Formats: sequence, C-alpha cells, structure tokens
Amino acid sequence: MTRPLPGTRADYSIFAPLTTRWMDNDVMGHVNNAVFYSFFDTAITRHLVAHGILGLPGADHVLMVAESACRYHQEVAFPDSLATGLRLARLGTSSIRHDVAVFRDGAETAAAEGHFVHVCVAAATRRPAPMPDAWRRLLEPFLMERR
Amino acid sequence: MTRPLPGTRADYSIFAPLTTRWMDNDVMGHVNNAVFYSFFDTAITRHLVAHGILGLPGADHVLMVAESACRYHQEVAFPDSLATGLRLARLGTSSIRHDVAVFRDGAETAAAEGHFVHVCVAAATRRPAPMPDAWRRLLEPFLMERR
Amino acid sequence: MTRPLPGTRADYSIFAPLTTRWMDNDVMGHVNNAVFYSFFDTAITRHLVAHGILGLPGADHVLMVAESACRYHQEVAFPDSLATGLRLARLGTSSIRHDVAVFRDGAETAAAEGHFVHVCVAAATRRPAPMPDAWRRLLEPFLMERR
Amino acid sequence: MTRPLPGTRADYSIFAPLTTRWMDNDVMGHVNNAVFYSFFDTAITRHLVAHGILGLPGADHVLMVAESACRYHQEVAFPDSLATGLRLARLGTSSIRHDVAVFRDGAETAAAEGHFVHVCVAAATRRPAPMPDAWRRLLEPFLMERR
Repeated sequence: MTRPLPGTRADYSIFAPLTTRWMDNDVMGHVNNAVFYSFFDTAITRHLVAHGILGLPGADHVLMVAESACRYHQEVAFPDSLATGLRLARLGTSSIRHDVAVFRDGAETAAAEGHFVHVCVAAATRRPAPMPDAWRRLLEPFLMERR
Repeated sequence: MTRPLPGTRADYSIFAPLTTRWMDNDVMGHVNNAVFYSFFDTAITRHLVAHGILGLPGADHVLMVAESACRYHQEVAFPDSLATGLRLARLGTSSIRHDVAVFRDGAETAAAEGHFVHVCVAAATRRPAPMPDAWRRLLEPFLMERR
Repeated sequence: MTRPLPGTRADYSIFAPLTTRWMDNDVMGHVNNAVFYSFFDTAITRHLVAHGILGLPGADHVLMVAESACRYHQEVAFPDSLATGLRLARLGTSSIRHDVAVFRDGAETAAAEGHFVHVCVAAATRRPAPMPDAWRRLLEPFLMERR
Repeated sequence: MTRPLPGTRADYSIFAPLTTRWMDNDVMGHVNNAVFYSFFDTAITRHLVAHGILGLPGADHVLMVAESACRYHQEVAFPDSLATGLRLARLGTSSIRHDVAVFRDGAETAAAEGHFVHVCVAAATRRPAPMPDAWRRLLEPFLMERR
C-alpha cells in the first residue's frame, strides 16, 4: 500500500476554525473516524451557504453527496482546536469535487484529508441535472490546481 | 407554566467558544435539542480537564453524570458561532452541580440554559464516594452564587 | 438529594427498539449522556410522525422543544440493544409533556428516564399557539396517569 | 464518471439490524452523509468485538482506521429501519479491508456502500505492527471474494 504524503496548508485555499467536543472522542480516546466527515461536510457547506448555493428554500436545484472518502494521517482528540482547509478540485457539468483537510491548531501538515463529490439534482425529481450557470460563476474562482 | 427569565452572561463565569456543524441542524433547520447537551457536556469537561480532574488514566475516582436538564429559549442554527457559559453552582460531599448556558455570538441573553449534576464514584466499584480533597480545593474558587 | 426510584416498563405505554452505535460510547466506555436525548427525541418523534403530527411539509403548526431533562440510573454501552418507553404525561392547550425512558434489553427497570415539554407554535411566526383540535384528538388516547 | 452498479445482499455475509434516529436526518430531510460512516463503523466494530478482537483493555495491539470511503446510491431517512452488510475483503500482514453496505429494510440493493482499511498498531507506540496470529485465525473464515 503506497499512500500519498499528507498534504499541507499550501494545498488548500479556504480555511475555517472548528472546535472539538467531548463526545467526539470515542473509547480509543481520539476523535472517532466518522466525526471527520462531519468536519468535512461542515467546511463545504459553510462555503456553499456563504455563497448562496445551498440552503435556499424553494431552490430548483440541490447538491447531493454522491461519494466521500478520508485518509487518516494523525490522531486528533478533544480538546484540540482544529481548522478545516478546502479546495475546489473539479467543476463538472453536473458534479463538483471538493478536496478537504483537517489541521490541528498550528500544524502545517494535515491530520486527515478527503474528498466529497456532490451531484446537482433537480429538487423536484432528485435526478441529475446541469448545474445552474449562476452557481458555476460563483464557484469558478475557487478552482485550485493540485500541486 | 411560569418560566424563569433567560439568564445573561453576567450569570456565568467561565466562557468558551464553540463552532456549529452542518449536521447539528435537523429537519426543522435549527440545532437539534439533543446537541445542546453535547455543548453543555463539552463546556464542563473542558473545564474539568483543564484542572486535571477528568481524564487521568488510572484515577481512583471518576465523575459520572447523574442528572441533566435544559430549557430552550431561542433557536440557534448552523453556521452560528456560539459561546458556552459555565458556573459551579454547588459543591457537595460527593456531588457537583454546574449551571451552563449557550449564547449566540454577541448576544447577552442565553439561547439555552441547563444544569448537570455529576456524582463522584470510586473507579473500581462505580459506587458514590466522597470527592478527593484535591478536587475540592481545585473547584472551590469557581463557586458562584446565583444572583 | 432524594431521588425517585427508577421507573419500570409498567410506567410506560409506547415501546420501540433502538440499536446502539460504536461512537455512542465515549472515553468512559459507556453511552455518552447527551446521546440519551437523541434516544428520547427519537422515541417521541417516531410516535408523532406515526400519527401524522410531525413532519408534514407546509403544516400551519409546529412542535418545538421548550424543556428536557434526564436522570441517569445505570450505564448502558455499545453493543447493548435498547428499548425506549414513552408516556404522554400532560396535554395542555399549547404544550405537551412526554415522559420517556430507556431500557436495556430484557431489563424491567429503566436505565435512564426523562421528560420533554413541546410547545405548539405557529409555523409562520414561531409564537406559541393553541394546538389544532385534530392533534388533540389524535394524542388524547395516549394520556397515561403516573402511578 | 462511471460508477460501479450498487451491490446486493449477496455481496455481503455478515448482517446486523440498525435503527435510525430523528437527528440523523439533516435539513435535506434525509440521513446526513457523515452518519453513514457511524453505521459502517458500528457494523465492523460489532463484528470485531463479538470475536474478541476489539475492546480488550490492556491489549498489546489496536486496530486504527487508516482510510474510509462511501458511495451513496439512494437516500434513507428516519424512521427507516436499516441493515448493515459486511464482508472481509482483504487480510494483510498488518492491515484489514472491510467492505460494508447499508440496506433499507426489505431492499436487495444497497443504499450506500463503502470500505474501511484498519491498520494494526502496537498499543504502546501506535506504530504499525504485524497482526497477532490469533486475530488472523479468528478473521480468516470471514474472507469473502468479490463476485
């Protein structure tokens, strides 16, 4: 199994702080693996909400998660303070890929990295549909080449 | 039903920031009622861990939650930034009562308030036991009268 | 502190099975205190959804949690199988009180007990409002005196 | 994007029931994407605990999650009853890969599928270490070829 080296803050462009919670820690005394996805999910959703792409009641289109993944590089544990890093990695006709990472406070190297693929669906039918042009224009500036 | 008026920041002494997560919001579009207890739990545990009272492997005594409660004054929702406020309300022989609140960023009035009663138990038997003197000395300075 | 004796299955009328999850266990190796509220919340919501009282898009009225509480009698831990017990304890003009308990598989005595007070609010204004007669008629048969 | 077809129950060998919770549903009215990982995690951990491989205090070796992933085929929502399906897909020297799926009650086709890679580490150092022979013997019977 060859694993890519952990990424660094330079690989990501959109950062947000994130506080851990006592119940994030499981019996092993570290943040449970599933909780990282709520960190990723929060980073992406915060970005989409801030740009008016998610959470508009009555919107014609909705973004649904089609795929997600995470590689765990290093344990984190409550009461660690964290930051999420986000990069828009692909902007397709009806799908988006975000790469996302979790950093411990002050660390340059990611504790965990993953990606989310969202698919744009028509709200009424929940069938894939081309993304509205307005969304594309809002997201394009965030596209970031992988180093 | 007469409800006490919501408390304010002046009713609490120990504050900590707290970030909300996308999945904290339930179908109603606000932070789910159960999530407030993980906010309270985090505020108390952060304080106890910081003073060496919780989380020591091999400790002879452990604090277990015997009772908790919450009154919900106002909705909060992701992506709100929050703060928890904490007050040590009672320090008994083998039990502790913390009052705890959640504030929206910048708000003086609590969005939710509750309390936790912890009981000190012997780690081996999990039966109630008098609290170690060292813990009492560490906690006493945080006792705060209710106004 | 005098605590009421733990209740039994005979104190409750509406039961539902509930599976525990690995991440419900916290560092103490037992189900975290906050998770019990998601058990209670699930028991009540399952009942209300089953009777068409919650989750109707476009409904004029909504039930909001005003208050909740829990007393913890006994630890439970993954992979325990659990059951929730529910009792409609009060049906007011604009508020409802449910008493709710968690039982370990096969146990007669509750591992934890609590209550939820919901307030009926107008969906548009989120201000308290008298409960629709249809809801009252649906709920009345579930009122159960405390022994 | 070509996606493999959703798997069926015949692709998995170890099944367990799973109840959904009200707060699993997010603002979209369906089980949040991160919650699926707690379903996967629960399926795997239940299996490992049942065979004495996880959760032994004082064990010399521990399994840590190195990687996880999920493809979402179909929405599920509270109050759905679910089942998890599990397959041991690879048993390496110091790592294990489980494939895992979530099925709605009565459905033959998976609503979501993913995998977890665990790495065996020495408890003291948390450095990768060859898996104990006893674990290998316990797990080998569960190896299942992909169709």
